[in-house]
This record gives sequence, C-alpha cells and structure tokens, in this order.
Amino acid sequence: MSIAIPRVVLLAHTEDPERLIAAAARLCYSQSSVEDIREQLTPEKIESFLDTLLDMGHESPIEHISFTFGIEGVSRSLTHQLVRHRLASYSQQSQRYVQAKQFAYIMPPLIAANPEACAVFEAQMRAAQESYDQLLAMGFPREDARYVLPNACETRLVMTMNARSLLNFFTARCCMRAQWEIRALAEAMLALVQPIAPHIFAHAGPNCTRYGVCREGAMSCGRIAAIDSRSNPVR
Amino acid sequence: MSIAIPRVVLLAHTEDPERLIAAAARLCYSQSSVEDIREQLTPEKIESFLDTLLDMGHESPIEHISFTFGIEGVSRSLTHQLVRHRLASYSQQSQRYVQAKQFAYIMPPLIAANPEACAVFEAQMRAAQESYDQLLAMGFPREDARYVLPNACETRLVMTMNARSLLNFFTARCCMRAQWEIRALAEAMLALVQPIAPHIFAHAGPNCTRYGVCREGAMSCGRIAAIDSRSNPVR
Amino acid sequence: MSIAIPRVVLLAHTEDPERLIAAAARLCYSQSSVEDIREQLTPEKIESFLDTLLDMGHESPIEHISFTFGIEGVSRSLTHQLVRHRLASYSQQSQRYVQAKQFAYIMPPLIAANPEACAVFEAQMRAAQESYDQLLAMGFPREDARYVLPNACETRLVMTMNARSLLNFFTARCCMRAQWEIRALAEAMLALVQPIAPHIFAHAGPNCTRYGVCREGAMSCGRIAAIDSRSNPVR
Amino acid sequence: MSIAIPRVVLLAHTEDPERLIAAAARLCYSQSSVEDIREQLTPEKIESFLDTLLDMGHESPIEHISFTFGIEGVSRSLTHQLVRHRLASYSQQSQRYVQAKQFAYIMPPLIAANPEACAVFEAQMRAAQESYDQLLAMGFPREDARYVLPNACETRLVMTMNARSLLNFFTARCCMRAQWEIRALAEAMLALVQPIAPHIFAHAGPNCTRYGVCREGAMSCGRIAAIDSRSNPVR
Repeated sequence: MSIAIPRVVLLAHTEDPERLIAAAARLCYSQSSVEDIREQLTPEKIESFLDTLLDMGHESPIEHISFTFGIEGVSRSLTHQLVRHRLASYSQQSQRYVQAKQFAYIMPPLIAANPEACAVFEAQMRAAQESYDQLLAMGFPREDARYVLPNACETRLVMTMNARSLLNFFTARCCMRAQWEIRALAEAMLALVQPIAPHIFAHAGPNCTRYGVCREGAMSCGRIAAIDSRSNPVR
Repeated sequence: MSIAIPRVVLLAHTEDPERLIAAAARLCYSQSSVEDIREQLTPEKIESFLDTLLDMGHESPIEHISFTFGIEGVSRSLTHQLVRHRLASYSQQSQRYVQAKQFAYIMPPLIAANPEACAVFEAQMRAAQESYDQLLAMGFPREDARYVLPNACETRLVMTMNARSLLNFFTARCCMRAQWEIRALAEAMLALVQPIAPHIFAHAGPNCTRYGVCREGAMSCGRIAAIDSRSNPVR
Repeated sequence: MSIAIPRVVLLAHTEDPERLIAAAARLCYSQSSVEDIREQLTPEKIESFLDTLLDMGHESPIEHISFTFGIEGVSRSLTHQLVRHRLASYSQQSQRYVQAKQFAYIMPPLIAANPEACAVFEAQMRAAQESYDQLLAMGFPREDARYVLPNACETRLVMTMNARSLLNFFTARCCMRAQWEIRALAEAMLALVQPIAPHIFAHAGPNCTRYGVCREGAMSCGRIAAIDSRSNPVR
Repeated sequence: MSIAIPRVVLLAHTEDPERLIAAAARLCYSQSSVEDIREQLTPEKIESFLDTLLDMGHESPIEHISFTFGIEGVSRSLTHQLVRHRLASYSQQSQRYVQAKQFAYIMPPLIAANPEACAVFEAQMRAAQESYDQLLAMGFPREDARYVLPNACETRLVMTMNARSLLNFFTARCCMRAQWEIRALAEAMLALVQPIAPHIFAHAGPNCTRYGVCREGAMSCGRIAAIDSRSNPVR
C-alpha cells in the first residue's frame, strides 16, 4: 500500500507535426501538390500560416497530428472522467483481469495535508485491501472482489488524441473549475506537447487563455469577467 | 445503506422508427421524394425491406432512430465500462456535486449468495460510508471525500444511443464473456427496444446470435464453435 | 430538365425535447430518480434550467434530443460540404443506382439573375444530360456515366443530427462566410427546429449571434468586430 | 485539359506502430508500467501478441496508430464517397477558392477503352471547362461557376485515419461491390500501409479476406458463398 506517484510520458507523436498541418491547410487553397507544398514551407511560412489558421478558427487541419500518452499514478475517479472525452482512444489496465496486489492509491492533497484526515483515509485504504484480499482468498473472481476497491485506486492507461481534441480537452480540464486531479494531468500533458507543436499549443488552455472569454457564469474563478450572454449586442 | 435495485426505463425514442429507417434506406435507390416513399410503405414492405437491409449489412440507415434510457441501481464499475461506448450521449449523477448519503451499493450475486462473503462486503460498505462521512464532517469537499467510496457505489444516468450503436453494444455486452452486471443491463435494454423496433432488433445479441459466428477464440463459451481464422479458405 | 426547388421537412424529432434535456441535466446534480425529476419539472423550471445550462456551456445534455430532416432540391456541391459534418447520419440518393433522367439542377441566384449567364449555364446542363444519356445508350453503367454530371445536379437525402451537433452546424453554416446554398439550408433547418426547442435554439446561429464574438478575422462581414486574438489580456 | 493520374503517398505514420499497439494492449492485462512493457517486447512477442489480439477481435488498441495520406488524381465522385467515412480527418482542395484552370479529369476505364464513348466524354469535359471559364470571365465568383463542373473533376486531399478505421475502410472499399475508383484507391492505400504494420494489415480487405464470410447476399461476387442469415443454427 502506497501513495501513487502521477506520471505522464509521451509514447508517440506525429513527426514534424506543424509542417504537416500547414501543408494540409495550404492544400485547401492551392493548385500545387501536397508534396510540393510541404517541401516549400519554410519555418517562417509555417509559423505565419498556423497563426492565421488558429485566429480564423480553421481547426480541422489540426486533426492530422496525434499524440499518444502513457499515464500512471492516477485514480479511477480521474479515468472515469477522462474516458468521457470521446474523440480519443484508450487502453486501460483492467480490474477484471489484473489483481490489485497492495494497490497504490491517490490521496487528495487537502487530505494529505491534514494528519487526522490522512489517518482516516489510509485506514480506509487498508480496510479495502483487506476485504478485497479476503474475497479473493474465498475464491471469488477478481471482477467481483473489485467492487470493494475505492475510487482512489491507482490505474494506468495509454491514451491517443489528435491535436484538435487535445485543445478541447485543455479548454475543459485546465480551467480552475475542473477537478484538481484531472487538471494536474491536463497541465502535465500540455507541458509535454507544447515543445513539439509550439504554435498549435501556444494559447492552449481554458477559455480565458485561449479566447479571452469566460463561460463559467456564476461559477467563474474571476480571472477574467464571465460573459453575461444577455448583453450580446447582436441578439 | 442498502443494496441497489437495478432499473432501466425507456425515456424517449424515435416515433414509428422502422418506417423512418425503411424510408431513408429506400431513398438511396429511388427517384421519389422521401415523403412519398414514407407514405407508400405498407407494414409488409417495411418488413421485407428491413430484412434485406440487415442481411446485406447496409447499416447506416439504422442510425436515424435513437433511444434514451434512464438507468439506476448500477455500480460505478459498470458505468466506467459503459461510457467507453463513444457513439452515445451520457448525463450521469456527479459524485463531485451530489452527496453520497447512506449510499446504495451493488453486490455481486456470487457474493450475495455466500453469507460469509456477504458479511465482509457489507462491513466494507459501512466502513467506506463512515470514512466518507468523517471526511465531510471535517470540512473536506465532496469531490475529495469520494476517493474512499467503492466501485460498488450506486450511480444513475441518462444515456442516448442510436440503433446502430445499440446493435454493437448488444454484440459486445450480451456476450457470455461480458461482465455479469453490464450484461444484465444490456439484456434489460434489449428487452425494452425489441417491441419498438422488432425487425431491427430481431437478431440483436452477441456475434453468435447476430451472425452465427464466434470470435472469442480460446475464451469462447462454446455455444457455437469459435472461428479459427487460420482456416479461412480465401487467405 | 428544370431548376430544382429546395425543400426541407422535419421527418422526426424527440418528443417533449426540452423536458428531456432538463431532466438529464438535473440528474447530474440531484439525488432523485430521473423519472421523479422529469415529472416535477414545470415549464418555468425547464426554461430557467435550460438558460443556466446554455449560459454555462454545459452542452452535453443537449445531445439527448435529435432531429431527422428530409432534404430535396439541393446540389451535390452542397451535400459534399454537408456530409463533412461527422456527428450526423446520412442516407443519400445514389448516382450509382438511380438514373438521372431529366435531372433537375440548382442554379446560383447571381447567375439566374443574369440572362446571358443563365443561358450559358442552361446550355451546359443540357449538354451534360445529353452526354450522360448517350453513354447510357451505349451500354455504360450509371456509375460511369455520372462522371459527366455537374455539381449542380439535384440530390436528396435524409439527415439526422442531435441538437448539440446542430448548434455547431448553425454556427458554421448560418455565418455570412458560409456558401449561399448551404446557408439557405441551415436557415431553413433552424426555422424548423426553433419552434420545437425554443430555448435550446433561442440564440442558435453564427458566433456573433450565439456568443457575441466573431472569429473570421480579416474575412469578417463586419456585423460585429472580429476578435484580435493578440489583444487577449490574459495571454 | 488532361486525364488525371491517380497518386497516393504516405505523408506520415506513427513510428514503430506494432510495438505501440502491443504495449497498449498488454497494459490492459499487466501490472507493469507501459514503458517496461514496451522495452521488453521482442519482435516475436509482438507478433504473437498481435495475432491473438486480432483473432479475438480486441480491436481498440489498434486505434493508437494512425496514417496520413496525400491523395491526388481522384474525382469528386470519389471524395464525396470517401468523406462519408466519419472516423477520419480530411483537408481537401476547395472549389470555392481554387480556380479550376484547365482542370484534369478522371475518365472511367470502360469509357477510356471505347473510342466513341471517349470522344463523348472528352467533348463534355471541354464544354464544362468553357462554360466555367465564360462564367468567370463574366465576373461570377468561383463558388458559383463551379456548379457547371463535372463529377469527373480532379481533386486533392490530405486524409488521416487510425488503423482500426482503416481496417473498416478496407472491408467496405476493397470489396468487389465497391465502385472501381474508390476500390483502386483503397488498394493503393493498403499497399502503402501493409509494409509498415504487416501483422495489423495481414488480412485486411473485404469480409471474405478478413473473416472468411460474405455479407453481400444476392449481390455477392461469388468468391466465397454469401451467408444466408436464415441458416444460423443459434437463432
């Protein structure tokens, strides 16, 4: 039994990703072949072309590049939220097939900072492990014993998303209103992809960072004033 | 604390669904307007047309009809699997916002049938509730306290799927290899939709029922011989 | 040979759609069963709940309702654009199987308003029909003869979209920068769905109508100032 | 004016793709970290693991790898079919923005082989070009003039698909019942990806090649007997 250490690595990504996006986007407006376009793109042209693309919201060419992450040290609370992002691919460690031997768990930072709460939490983790082990020892299958395991239980997965889906993911999950665990994951993922496609992810983040607006209404963190949709001048 | 009672209701579905599918499919091969086609379809024509459609694997017109289910009394183990079906829409009770007061739980039938295991299980449910209540009493937010809640915890959701996605869902989840809880849900859903679109769902179910083949290899239940792909005569 | 008359009808839609969305959304934050929630919703509660939902950008419950359209009198130029909207279902009249006898065609309004251009256009339509008929008479299959048919050729289809996908469709295609033919279709569709889900579609339309912002940059129609992303105060 | 030469190139693909799939799939059933799994996979283990995966129809890990194609020398008839595959990303040359100067065209092989038909076809292509040029010369925008352009008109695009979506694409489009132009494209794409992921695409192709069954009913090419669904022993 131990506290899980969150860890995200980039397992794979499209090579020379910004050149590919720029070439695909340029093809839409050009008579040249895509290979000629791709070869003639200088870094300066790529940069200016991507800036125009993102400013105009012409997002579909961004889908051509994708990123595959290895994710460990996260809770099943997190992954239940994560897999709701449907434009992505997931391969997750199975609790039906893999035995939860001395499972690691995720402890919320607020609880970890409070010794009394921490003791309650850890006792509950140990109790869950004991019940699980007892049920296995009595001959029940893993897929049944796991019903006593907590949301805090560590899980691992491989996830692939294209860059357009990632931008939406960052908008939803880098926002202060997202839950702390998935926000930390989103920030770690953003730090991994930004060096690889710096123009695409230059302004990735919540609506305030990406668009200069907030749509969280009364729940806004106040970093930027939330839009009052009733004040729209063209309605 | 109590054992949750699974419950699925059909909240909404496309009206006169088989006529709509038959009309959409017919339009592909006809010079008539879709309204003329729809009015001229007799029940006999609809039936024979749908049979041809399904036999030929022309599945896309089946997407035009959809079904919305209200689902209660299921575990978060189940919903973590369920939401992996990406061609569907979900609205699920949130553990971040809704307090788990005297939560109901799902107990695996094998465990319920064994008094000793049952006692281990129930004690663990009570312990989880107590730890959760203690953390809330200490002032921690619900979204943190829920980390001690078990997979067994009841949840509720509204789910919408179109008929093509449902057929795939039934193929994966009515199979004997699916986990018992989601298989029971799939069977209950199938019983609800079959009277409403009897020709579309006539042969819905696992691969053996739907296609007369099994792809589970060495894990097959043996109801029908699993395909040995190496014996394919055209390879 | 004749000019096609565009025509859109609503073939099916989810019944009592705003109650269903409000109930699904409410379930996320409630301990009640979805059926209790649904029954207790008054029209006033539905309205206020949907307004909050849309203001906060909590869009996923909107997916539970869908609309099926019968569309005629549109060009294959239009449908080639239309089917790029991937979160939708389509059944389209096939040029491989259906003979284009005296095909109807769509003529751009600017051309129709100019007698000389109109004559060029119509002559070209007649020439295409003659070439097509000649190739069929020589025994070539429809799927080959159709290569001479013009983009202007009329086509028909049945399309189903959920309300969230529709809102995105209206944002892209009701904008002044969308092509005139698909904009006219989008506006006709919007007029059909607005009476059925008035709160959901109250502010449907381009970004300016929906959000009070424009992202078209230098291509903006000027109805509202386009966002200059470089002026975002939080970047 | 000239006959277009079809051309497909592979612009990008996931590196070391079969190792990535095997590692992702293995993670589901293992306690190890994904990086340890990936490093320990020998080519023999990858091969045997992928074979098991495909035999058992565990297809989701195949989604982690994707391929980006540059496609030229294809007709707009083809691309209207192609973009119906919704689990893919497309960037296509626009007829609204790019002028069709001396457009190249695709001529069906049966027509090309018949001098008389060929003459009809080419005359029609020239007539379309002339009408288009006249409308442009009269000042009409490209997006209106293009209504006279034929289905045969060449177009270019960049397309990205993951391997699972590709396998479905090959099943639908390598079948003898698919139209000749898209079948040729599918076969050229398959020839490009097979050397890169030989085990994944070993049995890619129509249902007969992939599964040893045919679902085309009365329209079957007869290479293998079509399934008569009424003979299913478990129904």
